[in-house]
Order: sequence, then C-alpha cells, then structure tokens
Amino acid sequence: MKTYLDCIPCFFKQALFAARAAVDDEAIIKEVLDRVGMLVSKIPLESSPPETGKEVYKTVREVTGVDDPFKGLKEESIDKALALYPSLKEIVTKAKDPLETAVRLAIAGNVIDFGANPDFELEKDIQKVLHQERAINHYQAFKDKLASARRILYVGDNAGETVFDKILIEAMGRPVIFAARERPIINDATTEDAIRSGLGEVATVISSGSDAPGTVLEGCSDDFLDLFKGADLIISKGQGNYETLSTEKGPIFYLLKAKCPVIAKDLGVEVGHTVIKHGSSPI
Amino acid sequence: MKTYLDCIPCFFKQALFAARAAVDDEAIIKEVLDRVGMLVSKIPLESSPPETGKEVYKTVREVTGVDDPFKGLKEESIDKALALYPSLKEIVTKAKDPLETAVRLAIAGNVIDFGANPDFELEKDIQKVLHQERAINHYQAFKDKLASARRILYVGDNAGETVFDKILIEAMGRPVIFAARERPIINDATTEDAIRSGLGEVATVISSGSDAPGTVLEGCSDDFLDLFKGADLIISKGQGNYETLSTEKGPIFYLLKAKCPVIAKDLGVEVGHTVIKHGSSPI
Repeated sequence: MKTYLDCIPCFFKQALFAARAAVDDEAIIKEVLDRVGMLVSKIPLESSPPETGKEVYKTVREVTGVDDPFKGLKEESIDKALALYPSLKEIVTKAKDPLETAVRLAIAGNVIDFGANPDFELEKDIQKVLHQERAINHYQAFKDKLASARRILYVGDNAGETVFDKILIEAMGRPVIFAARERPIINDATTEDAIRSGLGEVATVISSGSDAPGTVLEGCSDDFLDLFKGADLIISKGQGNYETLSTEKGPIFYLLKAKCPVIAKDLGVEVGHTVIKHGSSPI
Repeated sequence: MKTYLDCIPCFFKQALFAARAAVDDEAIIKEVLDRVGMLVSKIPLESSPPETGKEVYKTVREVTGVDDPFKGLKEESIDKALALYPSLKEIVTKAKDPLETAVRLAIAGNVIDFGANPDFELEKDIQKVLHQERAINHYQAFKDKLASARRILYVGDNAGETVFDKILIEAMGRPVIFAARERPIINDATTEDAIRSGLGEVATVISSGSDAPGTVLEGCSDDFLDLFKGADLIISKGQGNYETLSTEKGPIFYLLKAKCPVIAKDLGVEVGHTVIKHGSSPI
C-alpha cells in the first residue's frame, strides 16, 4: 500500500506519542518533532507507511536515547492478554466452529496498538469482534487453504496480540512458523515478546529480519524470504503487515481490524471493520 | 496561550485540509506538507498557535497559488446561517432571558470551523448548546459589565458564526464595534464576510489588522489597539482569539466552544464544553 497524504499528520501524532513514552522533557520531544519535520520532504508517497514509520521511530530513538520506549507497555499488554488466555480458550472450545472463532479472536487481538490507535479497549473490542460481521470475509477460502497447507508462515504484529495468535495457531492444529520483528519498534512483537506470549509452545518462532513496523520484504532476512516464497499459506496480521504486503499475490490472508481511515479506504471498508482477505482475490 | 506539542500534528492536518480545499494535485499538496515540515523547527512553543497558523496558511497560499481556499465554504456558511436567522431570532424573542439565550447562540455559532474542527453539525450543535450547562459560566459578570459598558469591542471569529454574533449584538442593544480579520485566513471572517452577514446593520465593522487566525496584538493596527485598550467590554469569540488573547487581563470575556483537547486542557474543561469566561477571573 502506498503512503497517503493523510499518513503525514499521523506520523507526527505517532512520533509525539512515542517520544512522550520515552521521555518527559518537552524540549527533547520538540526536537523529535523538528527532526520528523525535516523528514517529510524525503517521504516518497510510493513507499509504504511502515517504511517511513521506520525512520520516524528511529528518529525517536536517536533523539531521546531510549531504544525501546514501549517495552513496559508491551510487557503489560502480554500479561493482560495472558490473563485472558483461559477465558479465550474456553470461548473457542465451546464454539460451533472453533477455527472461525479463533480467527475472530486473532483479529480482536489486533486492537492492541500503540501506533495508529493507542486508545483501545481490549475486552470491549473482543466482544464486538466476536459478534461483528466481517466486512471482507474470505474465511471459507482460508479454511480450504489450511486443509491442504503444509508450509504455513504466520507473520505476527503486536505484542499482546501474540497471545491471540497462539489461540488461532492452536485451533489450526498444524505446524506453523511464526515470524516476529527483528528489533523493537512501536509495540510490535519481537521474538522475545513472542516467546513470552507462549508462542514457542505452538510454533517455531523466528525473526523476519524486518526492523520496520511491518514487513518490508527488501529489509527481510534471506531465511525469511525463502520461507515467504515457499509457503503455501501465509497469515499476515494487522495493519503494518497489510501496508507492506498488500500488493503480494501469493497464498496470503490478511487478518486485521481497519483502525485508521486510510487503511479502511484502501480496503474499501469502514473504520472499525474487521477483515479476513485473501491476497489474490479482488476486494 | 502557548503552543502545545499536540498542536504540531494538528498543523499538518490543517495544512492538508486547506491544501485540498485549494487544489486537487497530490504533488502540490505534498509540497505544502514538505514546506510545513520545514517550519516545525522554527515554531517557538512560547508563541500562540495562531502565530504558527499564520505561517502554515501562508505556505498553503504560496505553494497552491490560491489566495482564499475557503472562499466558497465561507459564503456557504454565511448563507446557511442567514437562512437560520429568522428561527434563531424567534428563539431569542421567546426566551425568558433573551440576552442569555443570545449568548448561547453566539457560542453555538462558534461550531462553524474549518480549521480545528471541520466535521461540525450546525443545527444539532445549536440545540445542544442551547440546553447544555456551561463549563465556565461568567454570564452574570458579563451582564453586569454590559449594563455600564460604553465602549464595546466585539472580536469576531468565523464566517457564518458572524450571523450568530449579529443576534447577540442585537440582544445587547448597545453600540458595538465589530472587528474582523485583515485578510482571508481559514474560514475566519473578514470585514467583507461580516458585512455579508448583516453585521453592518447593527455594529461598526472594522478590521483588527490581524492576518493570523486569531488576534496577535503585535500584528494589529494602531486603530484597533487604541480601541482594544480603551474598551470597557471586550467580547472575544472562538478558539483563535482565546489562544492569542488568553493572557490579557482587561475587561475581556471569552465566548467559545472548546473544540480541541489542547484548548479544553488549557481552560480546564472537556472537549465539547462551552465557556463564557471573564479574562481577569481565575478559572
């Protein structure tokens, strides 16, 4: 997905939120915004938003000197999600179609986001997503694909959401490779966060090599690219992965909640809608 | 009022909205944002937001070549408000305290705003403001001051809102000088807009000399400054005037709706709250 003009004010909102998570000093935070201001003219609209996001968050790190401003928030999100795990498992177990319910929960977990949408309400949203009709619903195609898939790659998104991913992977009941980010960026899950969420028990956890808040294939490791090209089912979670992988035509399914107007517009849905979309299908 | 860090993302949002009102060409709009990006490091947080706003909108004009992107929207707002005028007059005439109701309507008119809050719903908001309790209510002090005031200066805000100002000035029943902006900026009322709204029939319409979306005293004309210093009652409408005049200690009353979190915080109220605040009173 390209960068829309509306993404630019949002980069400043995100830089401000991240800088405030890192430091209290107003002068330092202002310097972050000054530096992000200098970046604007260098943003090519043809690139995806996470490619710029990578530079924005790098600026936050460099100016504040704080490498991982969201470390505490990430741990908190994982702990909260782990506390919910037993009740979520019960919802899946009791469901008529456990896989379908697990897909819903995996999408609900995508609400945990300190980038585009820091004002989320997790438990309220879980209930909503469990009962909401999906705006794009390629679940049947996903189920069919899963039945025959042998090489399954699951591209994770945020820390905490990872616990919900675990539930889906368990419901899938198949060997899965779970790819996390190479380094901390916003509240995206690293391999460490994935392991802390219990994903090591149900999947092979690897790094994609991406240090952007998404999966910029040019920045990924060769190992990941091999897995990506060889997979017969790819699950792409969340906005950042959609933004960077939306032009891929492989056996990829995007599971996400459209949390910002730009992505909603790109998908042809409304903000707040949930989606399971097959990459090679027209919308 | 100082510029808060949260104002910076908002400057980009406003620049984008204004540039889109001016032109369709994405490359030109991107150039506006690039240029606003270069401005960020030059924004002193000690200055008021309209001082930066002035530079932002100047950039929009320079890059797009469109001097008044909101001309059509302003005319539309005035026409809409003029169409409401008879029913608004009736509300005032039938009210127990016509002056108090006219104050409410003048504040309701402040919802017309293409800067901080372009998604307004005028008629819905009028009803709300008519019945809503004011978060800061120095109406009695205003009424007392009005009883003895001889030199009344009314500092206007947006085009369309001016029709609501006319209603308040009529209810005040006193000679009033109405000050509008020196040149078009956002949808702020110029003298031309004020006259078009019918204010010439009930007040002496002048320009403040300000070319910012507020009243930056350093940029105002000597004539306006004489009136400002000599007034025994000043009515300051809207956010932009509050942002630039909030440190004044004279006989000034701010009538506004807090439409953004930054101003709400500065006033100690919630977003959406309405206010009639005496300048020399603590909140």
